[in-house]
Amino acid sequence: MTQTFQNAVTRTIQVKDIRLVYRELGARGGVPVVFLHHLTAVLDDWDPKLLDGIAGSHHVVIFDNRGVGGSGGQTPASVAEMAADAIAFIEALGFAQVDLFGFSLGGFVAQVIAETRPDLVRKIVLAGTGPAGGAGISNIGAVLQDGFRKGAAAKKHPKHFLFFSPSHEGQKAADAFLHRLAERQADRDTPVSDQTVQAQVTAIAKWGQAPSSIEALKQVRHPVLIANGDEDVMVPTRNSIALFDALPNAKLSIFPDAGHGGIFQYADAFVDQTLRFLAE
Amino acid sequence: MTQTFQNAVTRTIQVKDIRLVYRELGARGGVPVVFLHHLTAVLDDWDPKLLDGIAGSHHVVIFDNRGVGGSGGQTPASVAEMAADAIAFIEALGFAQVDLFGFSLGGFVAQVIAETRPDLVRKIVLAGTGPAGGAGISNIGAVLQDGFRKGAAAKKHPKHFLFFSPSHEGQKAADAFLHRLAERQADRDTPVSDQTVQAQVTAIAKWGQAPSSIEALKQVRHPVLIANGDEDVMVPTRNSIALFDALPNAKLSIFPDAGHGGIFQYADAFVDQTLRFLAE
Repeated sequence: MTQTFQNAVTRTIQVKDIRLVYRELGARGGVPVVFLHHLTAVLDDWDPKLLDGIAGSHHVVIFDNRGVGGSGGQTPASVAEMAADAIAFIEALGFAQVDLFGFSLGGFVAQVIAETRPDLVRKIVLAGTGPAGGAGISNIGAVLQDGFRKGAAAKKHPKHFLFFSPSHEGQKAADAFLHRLAERQADRDTPVSDQTVQAQVTAIAKWGQAPSSIEALKQVRHPVLIANGDEDVMVPTRNSIALFDALPNAKLSIFPDAGHGGIFQYADAFVDQTLRFLAE
Repeated sequence: MTQTFQNAVTRTIQVKDIRLVYRELGARGGVPVVFLHHLTAVLDDWDPKLLDGIAGSHHVVIFDNRGVGGSGGQTPASVAEMAADAIAFIEALGFAQVDLFGFSLGGFVAQVIAETRPDLVRKIVLAGTGPAGGAGISNIGAVLQDGFRKGAAAKKHPKHFLFFSPSHEGQKAADAFLHRLAERQADRDTPVSDQTVQAQVTAIAKWGQAPSSIEALKQVRHPVLIANGDEDVMVPTRNSIALFDALPNAKLSIFPDAGHGGIFQYADAFVDQTLRFLAE
């Protein structure tokens, strides 16, 4: 049966020494699209509008990596280890080749998978993300604190400030996005632990402080769709442009008056762009 | 009566020593949006989908500048002179303040108007354009020749190659765009003369060779929406990013798998973005 975000069953699979939780959406067949998630995110934090839009014509797989949400183990504090676990997950499911959809931290992981296991990857979507050593990425701790401070002051979810622009349109989009994330009622995932958040923040800061990966990215031949809002405060938008300049087979989509969550604010347009990109 | 692209009456108005042709669309009232056109373009070369989309809630004015199409006089060979004529046109119509929509060469003109007569301008849309001294702009002659050569070889309009990406999606969008440009049957404008094309090409090349205007643009306080395709070969996309980096109050919209005519390929999404920008 074809499953949607709302009713997709949570499954587990043994990957190396632990069990990871995952869900599958859409019809089986074709190259599956494996989604790689952002800091603090669990299965329920994907935008249903985005996932169901893509799952309408693709086999979509979402999962919690090691230590995240309902998955077992401790979250590692490096992108390289997260990528190794993601590769093991993909292989455990028996996929010979996948499309990767990486958002933010998940985009870092997607880049490392493409560099280390190019054979495993067909196409890549990189949203709200950037290269190793990219501008402003290592500020993640301060940016998070600022978002949480603004959220507390405004009595709103910090994602209002971390994912969306401060304009009327941006804040309206934040409300709509958060509303969509609450749609699924049954069988919700476990929230992330403090250990996971700390390890992920460390991994992001280390990615930002690492030597630039721009030269390595010039060797990545996969078709890549890069997307972001024009005023991302978490992984500054200039990093999306740096990815576009470096990757030899890339397309670029920038949404106006939008932040880190620009792909959610413009979910309809972005789904359309992604479907065309995957179909080409 | 509200007029659309299809039925808008062609009018003339005395501006300094000559008569310029123009058309008005949409309901009168509010700040009018004055459109500034690209190399070789006359009144009929605006995309009806774009113009009618904006004219649905704005007073839209399109015109042929000095020497272009049905307008009198000789086309000047500098952006500064084109801007002076455009200002005279706006003042002849009695507008105290306008929004400017500049595409390509028209975007150069819009920038000069905003710099020299900031009082006359409320908001600006800059599509497929770039700053003075911007990368690759002075190559216009060679780029045009290449487009015409490819057009002749493929028995297609050169805009297939100058305005759109070579992908299946891009070429399909070119067909649809050219079809829309042919929709208006009655009272079509006069095509541009060789004198106009030569003067415009000279003006564009000089703009590309001029000292960089980036520092001057940092003083332009108007809200600006910058838009382009991600693979513009006429005014390379990096110029749109340079505008976004320089202008203090700018938003950026980049469309994937799209060229100089990305705003026409994504006309629906772009109209929506433009309406939100003008309404804010």
